[in-house]
Amino acid sequence: MAVHLLTPPLPAPLQRRRAGPSASASLAHPLHLHLHPRLRLTTSRPVPGRRTRRAMSSAIRSSLIDPDGGALVDLVAPPARRAALRAEAEALPRLRLAPVDVEWAHVLAEGWASPLRGFMREHQYLQCIHFNSLRLPSGAVVNMSLPIVLAVDDADKDRIGAAPDVALAGPDGQLIAVLRSVEIYPHNKEERIARTWGTTAPGLPYVDEAITSAGNWLIGGDLEVLQPIKYNDGLDHYRLSPQQLRDEFDKRGADAVFAFQLRNPVHNGHALLMNDTRRRLLEMGFKNPILLLHPLGGFTKADDVPLPVRMEQHSKVLEDGVLDPETTVVSIFPSPMHYAGPTEVQWHAKARINAGANFYIVGRDPAGMGHPTEKRDLYNPDHGKKVLSMAPGLEKLNILPFKVAAYDTVAKKMAFFEPSRSQDFLFISGTKMRTFAKTGENPPDGFMCPSGWKVLVDYYNSLQTEEAAATAAAPATV
Amino acid sequence: MAVHLLTPPLPAPLQRRRAGPSASASLAHPLHLHLHPRLRLTTSRPVPGRRTRRAMSSAIRSSLIDPDGGALVDLVAPPARRAALRAEAEALPRLRLAPVDVEWAHVLAEGWASPLRGFMREHQYLQCIHFNSLRLPSGAVVNMSLPIVLAVDDADKDRIGAAPDVALAGPDGQLIAVLRSVEIYPHNKEERIARTWGTTAPGLPYVDEAITSAGNWLIGGDLEVLQPIKYNDGLDHYRLSPQQLRDEFDKRGADAVFAFQLRNPVHNGHALLMNDTRRRLLEMGFKNPILLLHPLGGFTKADDVPLPVRMEQHSKVLEDGVLDPETTVVSIFPSPMHYAGPTEVQWHAKARINAGANFYIVGRDPAGMGHPTEKRDLYNPDHGKKVLSMAPGLEKLNILPFKVAAYDTVAKKMAFFEPSRSQDFLFISGTKMRTFAKTGENPPDGFMCPSGWKVLVDYYNSLQTEEAAATAAAPATV
Repeated sequence: MAVHLLTPPLPAPLQRRRAGPSASASLAHPLHLHLHPRLRLTTSRPVPGRRTRRAMSSAIRSSLIDPDGGALVDLVAPPARRAALRAEAEALPRLRLAPVDVEWAHVLAEGWASPLRGFMREHQYLQCIHFNSLRLPSGAVVNMSLPIVLAVDDADKDRIGAAPDVALAGPDGQLIAVLRSVEIYPHNKEERIARTWGTTAPGLPYVDEAITSAGNWLIGGDLEVLQPIKYNDGLDHYRLSPQQLRDEFDKRGADAVFAFQLRNPVHNGHALLMNDTRRRLLEMGFKNPILLLHPLGGFTKADDVPLPVRMEQHSKVLEDGVLDPETTVVSIFPSPMHYAGPTEVQWHAKARINAGANFYIVGRDPAGMGHPTEKRDLYNPDHGKKVLSMAPGLEKLNILPFKVAAYDTVAKKMAFFEPSRSQDFLFISGTKMRTFAKTGENPPDGFMCPSGWKVLVDYYNSLQTEEAAATAAAPATV
Repeated sequence: MAVHLLTPPLPAPLQRRRAGPSASASLAHPLHLHLHPRLRLTTSRPVPGRRTRRAMSSAIRSSLIDPDGGALVDLVAPPARRAALRAEAEALPRLRLAPVDVEWAHVLAEGWASPLRGFMREHQYLQCIHFNSLRLPSGAVVNMSLPIVLAVDDADKDRIGAAPDVALAGPDGQLIAVLRSVEIYPHNKEERIARTWGTTAPGLPYVDEAITSAGNWLIGGDLEVLQPIKYNDGLDHYRLSPQQLRDEFDKRGADAVFAFQLRNPVHNGHALLMNDTRRRLLEMGFKNPILLLHPLGGFTKADDVPLPVRMEQHSKVLEDGVLDPETTVVSIFPSPMHYAGPTEVQWHAKARINAGANFYIVGRDPAGMGHPTEKRDLYNPDHGKKVLSMAPGLEKLNILPFKVAAYDTVAKKMAFFEPSRSQDFLFISGTKMRTFAKTGENPPDGFMCPSGWKVLVDYYNSLQTEEAAATAAAPATV
């Protein structure tokens, strides 16, 4: 698994899906052309490159893309209601949430999962695991690929009994929400895992963290959160809600928003891709494409780089001018990570629709990792972008697939990989990056801006110091 | 696993979904009312009970329900073309099919899987395993829950090389079809199994039969079959194609067709359900509802009752008048069985749409079985009907869920189970039925018509004779 430590989605030539002067650009996968109705649907969207539409660009700002279900869900009680709600919650049966559950409550509360209004009831859960989508009463279909569920054990279930509503408390016991009109149904972990990950092999990080030891029941209901969820880790100012992001895009006058999901440090290959995307969007006629650089902030596996280190590294990348702060919004996506490849990448894209992004960049093996028990990638690295391009409910999102970037040893910079001169390219894996940092060796010039690299070196050094201390403190294993 | 030997879907009070005078009948699961757009969509369908529509009933016969994709697929070469096609096939790289593969070729050839025109290519396979549906170029969505794929091994793949077309031969080496514009892609068996069955436990019958020892590649393409596929087992006259069934329903002047999928002998509980369904359809205003009694004829697990025995038993049930031959069409559904519960029941329903059925009866735990390694049902017995009611692409089909029937020891007949006097009811499982037959004991009067029961007794006796012979022939295990 170490091989996959820091492997970021590597960028490659932007493939434009339609909707402007570049419509004739070839797609990464010809199959899209054959089967994807998006290619027809998108022709009716505003095309800023056309004179007749240009005048509309200011009018369409707030609706670059509609939230799923038509309106952003907001489950945080208004201030005037909070005291009464808290008093009510005090009297209800209480469930203690794990940290990952709180992250999902946060996700739900701010509407990232719109139109979902709480932890899934069974009819939603079943549609999610079987169809990766939910059909709304209107007949419309929205994407929903990851089960957003809350597990309870037998004792909790007995304690709740026939109570219609329960209070939810954080790991510290503080009340955070009320779950209403609850429905309790069996938590078949084997089936959930098999249908979400396509494997039941032991060692899946999210399963180990949040499923294996969880209760045998799931409780769904309508969520009402007592107040905005904060982490007090010095990073809350980065945690913009979907509504706040939409407001920010409006404020900046964005006429296109392209989202980049990541859980790793930004190297110059990523930057190449993001800057190239912007260039292409400008070529298509957009006047002010804004990049949403959107690191995932919830649960990640132990060997990923922790959020605070990543955020510091991202800051350096912007300070260094590798990315342009004027046209970039850096924010934290509060979701936990499943490492569920093609299933999860749909969630990553769907949530960004709700945050107002109408373009989504997808690379090689999104949300992938090594197979936990076999020497291979858990997912076919191409499946993520293929599945994303065909996913129900994502038709309105412009998917931007890209090929691999690597270090070009001739040009001495990160560049899109050219198979015809593959010997010139160096792939710098997460393991290799870690080895550089451990040995104090610098990566090749142009791999990452020096100030960003220093953040990682300091982090890896601190890890080594911790590991050395732990080894020294451990009993001898003779 | 023996417990699940013959457990048939047990019938219960018909739950009507809408579309007629009984529209106010309650649904088995209130959730349907909440989320299912079918409930709205179906109001625009012909409602024979209304005076204004009654005149239309003869006009709508051929289109009680449209095939998926709008037209029935027929992949059998017309007679005039067969000699040339065979000559062409002789010159192509040749793949030898297993018996289950031939059953799938049969299914594809006759359009049961319309609009699929051959074994799945990767973009279809991915949509199938992730979304249980296919999006067509028109934007329409059709259901497609089981992968209909053809596996090849490394040697086959090498042999095919870059050839665009391959010939398919049966297990006996006789040519049966050409597969055109082939695409070969990896066969990730673990992922296929996990996403199809929701488990990777060893001992799934279809997996053991058709996946474990299959090749590591899948080959998709457009199928062209040399001539209608026949089995020469004396039952081919029962194997009506979807088009032949549609013609038969027209000939009989059906204004509603309700399909009953089964892989077990018909007992009087089934008959109760089917007759009750007909009664309800008449009450709704339909003048001539026709039952499609549609036993599955492809691969079944070793301990299911074999097809020839079941067909003989079904004949007796009709001869005995338990079911009315005038309003019943008995035909064989050529598909192999996956035992994949909620995933498979969608396929069972979808294929019957193509055969012209606009009502589909679904019972407890459809396509279910015992968990292969744990002492429990593999699927939650309610999930089949729930998933079916929400499945993408099945909105146009009227789903008829029903509750359990059992032997009423007071009324001395099969009856819908009443929880209020549960002590009066006797559940006769497959195991119990086998025990009756083995010991020569008769089941309670009214469980099954005597002539049908005799078919089973003869079968079980022949099994015992075979088993005894096998035991006698086996070396002693002292």
